[in-house]
Amino acid sequence: MSGDTETERLAELAKRRGFFSRTAAAYGGVAGFYTYGPQGAALKDNLEAAWRDRFVTREGHMEISAPTVMPEPVFEASGHLETFNDMLVECAECGASHRADHLVEDAAADVEDAEALPNREVADLLAEFGIVCPSCGADLAGEPVEEFNLMFETNIGPGDSSPGYLRPETAQGIFVEFPQFAEYARNQLPFGVAQIGRAYRNEISPRKGLVRLRELTQAELEHFVDPEDDEAPLGRVADVTLPLYSVPQQQADDGAVQELTVREAVEEGVVGSDWIAYYLGISKRWYEQIGVDMDRFRYRQHLPGELSHYASDTWDGESEIDGDWIELTGFAYRGSYDLDRHAEYSEKDYTVFKQYDEPVTVERPTVDPDMSYLGPEFGEDAADVADALEALAEREPDAFEGDSVAIEVDDEVQTVPVEHTGFAIEEVTESGEHVRPHTVEPSFGVDRLVYTVLAHAYRQDEVDGERRTYLSVPADVAPTTVGVFPLMDKDGLDDRAREVARTLRGAGLAVTYDDSGAIGRRYRRQDEVGTPFCVTVDYDTPADDTVTVRERDSTAQKRVPVADLPDTLTALRDGDRSFEDL
Amino acid sequence: MSGDTETERLAELAKRRGFFSRTAAAYGGVAGFYTYGPQGAALKDNLEAAWRDRFVTREGHMEISAPTVMPEPVFEASGHLETFNDMLVECAECGASHRADHLVEDAAADVEDAEALPNREVADLLAEFGIVCPSCGADLAGEPVEEFNLMFETNIGPGDSSPGYLRPETAQGIFVEFPQFAEYARNQLPFGVAQIGRAYRNEISPRKGLVRLRELTQAELEHFVDPEDDEAPLGRVADVTLPLYSVPQQQADDGAVQELTVREAVEEGVVGSDWIAYYLGISKRWYEQIGVDMDRFRYRQHLPGELSHYASDTWDGESEIDGDWIELTGFAYRGSYDLDRHAEYSEKDYTVFKQYDEPVTVERPTVDPDMSYLGPEFGEDAADVADALEALAEREPDAFEGDSVAIEVDDEVQTVPVEHTGFAIEEVTESGEHVRPHTVEPSFGVDRLVYTVLAHAYRQDEVDGERRTYLSVPADVAPTTVGVFPLMDKDGLDDRAREVARTLRGAGLAVTYDDSGAIGRRYRRQDEVGTPFCVTVDYDTPADDTVTVRERDSTAQKRVPVADLPDTLTALRDGDRSFEDL
Repeated sequence: MSGDTETERLAELAKRRGFFSRTAAAYGGVAGFYTYGPQGAALKDNLEAAWRDRFVTREGHMEISAPTVMPEPVFEASGHLETFNDMLVECAECGASHRADHLVEDAAADVEDAEALPNREVADLLAEFGIVCPSCGADLAGEPVEEFNLMFETNIGPGDSSPGYLRPETAQGIFVEFPQFAEYARNQLPFGVAQIGRAYRNEISPRKGLVRLRELTQAELEHFVDPEDDEAPLGRVADVTLPLYSVPQQQADDGAVQELTVREAVEEGVVGSDWIAYYLGISKRWYEQIGVDMDRFRYRQHLPGELSHYASDTWDGESEIDGDWIELTGFAYRGSYDLDRHAEYSEKDYTVFKQYDEPVTVERPTVDPDMSYLGPEFGEDAADVADALEALAEREPDAFEGDSVAIEVDDEVQTVPVEHTGFAIEEVTESGEHVRPHTVEPSFGVDRLVYTVLAHAYRQDEVDGERRTYLSVPADVAPTTVGVFPLMDKDGLDDRAREVARTLRGAGLAVTYDDSGAIGRRYRRQDEVGTPFCVTVDYDTPADDTVTVRERDSTAQKRVPVADLPDTLTALRDGDRSFEDL
Repeated sequence: MSGDTETERLAELAKRRGFFSRTAAAYGGVAGFYTYGPQGAALKDNLEAAWRDRFVTREGHMEISAPTVMPEPVFEASGHLETFNDMLVECAECGASHRADHLVEDAAADVEDAEALPNREVADLLAEFGIVCPSCGADLAGEPVEEFNLMFETNIGPGDSSPGYLRPETAQGIFVEFPQFAEYARNQLPFGVAQIGRAYRNEISPRKGLVRLRELTQAELEHFVDPEDDEAPLGRVADVTLPLYSVPQQQADDGAVQELTVREAVEEGVVGSDWIAYYLGISKRWYEQIGVDMDRFRYRQHLPGELSHYASDTWDGESEIDGDWIELTGFAYRGSYDLDRHAEYSEKDYTVFKQYDEPVTVERPTVDPDMSYLGPEFGEDAADVADALEALAEREPDAFEGDSVAIEVDDEVQTVPVEHTGFAIEEVTESGEHVRPHTVEPSFGVDRLVYTVLAHAYRQDEVDGERRTYLSVPADVAPTTVGVFPLMDKDGLDDRAREVARTLRGAGLAVTYDDSGAIGRRYRRQDEVGTPFCVTVDYDTPADDTVTVRERDSTAQKRVPVADLPDTLTALRDGDRSFEDL
């Protein structure tokens, strides 16, 4: 055994076999940054492609690609400059930085959500519990707890007149360009815009490997819907079963995960938004397909205190590793928050013009104040009185039903006879209206997905009396599809095997060629990186033009003609054929 | 006509049709940052996939993925902290920043490479030519010219004790982890490690759209080779013709591009490195395949003054747009520079252990000093004398051929009789040696590739008496493969067309559904974004289950059974069938 916990076993395998390891270890590394080696990068790339296929291509959404560095006004509008903070306490003794809320939660059994407390109170709790610096042991009582903004800051161009930030989520690169994307969608709601790319969180002291990175990869979809007219296509997923851990269940003494179909979840009101329910449905199928163990997966609803300021209901897709639940995906109903903010801050139009089927005639209250009366009566306040009448007519047309109306100008109430207001109800024909769409956001953390797929695929068994470790990842997600070996590195078997490898690469398959060591050892190496199929060129190959194809999980072997290999292996990878039927 | 130059026409089309546009335009934008819209992101993604297929999968190389933010020691070692600078002059009047060397080159006809001059001299030239600030017109005479480092700087974690930089090239993320990658390659040279990802250059005042970005995408391959033993597989590309613009041709009065095969280029010594020649060969074919116009393409050798400090020979792949030549790719022979530097700065082992076929016996001079003589004779210097003898034996064994040897200890020359040195030549058996590989680097700028493919695909013709604009991009690179239209948005044609679109998406094709406007207008829209095929569901479809498939460039149309569409369109996209043969 190479470790006691899944996390330890995985870290060891990941480094040894090229999945991931700490960046720049030659210089001591720096917390929160990992480099994907060849196996990890291929796995990540395959998961991204699978996400694109499911959430972009098949749904008919658009995918865009924005910069990771964005100028300050974007994050003023998004609210990140003001609110994307963690609680920082610095040790006066050794200078180490820590998350004050985490220190308090670790020390005080009855404090569960210290982040929700004011800074002052958290500072008091540090003193009350006698909490010391985890790095040097010095007392932290009396140290101030401060807000630390989690965005990496930099300067664009020389000097500091143009601050820029590494985006904390890919989403803002979509929201800020909404007017253009609406144009590309020809103003037809609903439409979705997706992006896969790096995002950054300058964590105070990250510790959990791939689960808490300072530089991560997100796959986010912003689905813009008309809150009044658009309905989610629930029919497509109605019978998918969801493992739901709702707020009431979390708060109940004997609460548990409930298995409900999408239809039931919506009808019983467990999931409030049809759109969120739709994405829970298609995501569930997708997680299963890419290799997440559904016995170690749940959808957990955010508790009221956990919700972001912009979200009305959020569910997290969570996977279990070593007994901990890890957030893989957030499904948030963001309402119109983001578009509202960008409209307000940029003073540009962040709506969609929704054409009516037929032009509509509506009644609109108007005023046309008699200035020859208002002028003498109100002097220099006359214009303000006229404005106040217009605002009142729009807000409260009933106020004009009496003989006079009362309005407020500069904190003084003024009265105007209705006959001098020129009040009337006009009929106006409108061809459509401006709609501010709502946003439904499934936001996937790709690194945690990589991590979960690896953890859930890890298997050990015994083969020929020897312990074997293998990764049982789905064939179309595995970093390498085929390992090609010559049985011996001589007698022309090597040349033939190289030719086979070249042909398979030409067919677009991910191939590893390996001629070193005993054949059993080569199988084990491929087992450990999850390669679903190995092809061995042996002494029968020159005679009958067949090779051995061996399947990873069962270790079963079959003879296959060399000429059939590209099609057969492609079909096996894509699930169009099964190994048993060969 | 929508513009006079290719650049103008392209910028207009790019924004209107969703290829690319300036980021955060709602807030005025910021120079050097562009967002790819749906069409541009899909095109870029397809080009990256084509690169991966050719330069990673088919070559059997590894691909990795490192962070974009890296800690300072990496860039101390790489040399970027010291040398990745441009010449900055700031206007005292308005505060605008400019590249001093560019201002001088624009003003002084006879100064071609101001970047190679010392800062002082460039400052003098600003005064001499009376150069004024391009922003406000103030005189720049007397303003200092300073080095401005082009890396974006940030801080990792709270405080400024851990500076980080946005990587200026993806390459360093590979070099710094070389020891691990060598292990994954089981110490077998040659092997290649590739990476596709963002890189950053904090340009002083970028102006040329996608050609000079502050945030860009690179696709880089670092091919590590044994400089003594490894030979490039030239046979695979020997007959590929290269358009070479060598240093002698650039310097000759009537110099021109020479068309030479790879074999000729190597035999005639025009391209000095076999490995560089190999990559020029496979790249040439690849450029052609992805849609670069080979009549507007050349390989230009770097002039001696242009070479990076680490490179012994570099060729650029260049494309022509609006009469300017744009660097698409640099093919550099970096020698062992990068691994030398990281070995020196990290004090780690950046070599490969090369096992000999058979163990080799070598003669090795050794000493075994007689301390009972050295002790009394040299007192406390005795140990230093012994060390000096050992060093001398290794360096200059011939020195031990006489009766005594002279060595230097603490600046004093000491003499020791050879009989007391224990000098001998021993036979040692070695199983291999440590080799510092050389690096061959093809480095592609993906954004410029996107730009070139678009510019070279832009066509105008006349169809049915109307002017038509279309992008003649290869089918497997086009952002969208198929446009699906109902002839009319009624009579069930719309439902049928939607079903066709869904089926085609399910087959992994990139599909756009469009039901708005006249059918001719819908064809034009797809022509403008380069969609190679359009499928129209018309009134015959319900009767005979066929649809019209229309080809972009020829505008020819054929009837195809609905059931055959997925296979037929996939084959057309992949070039396995031609439209004429349908």
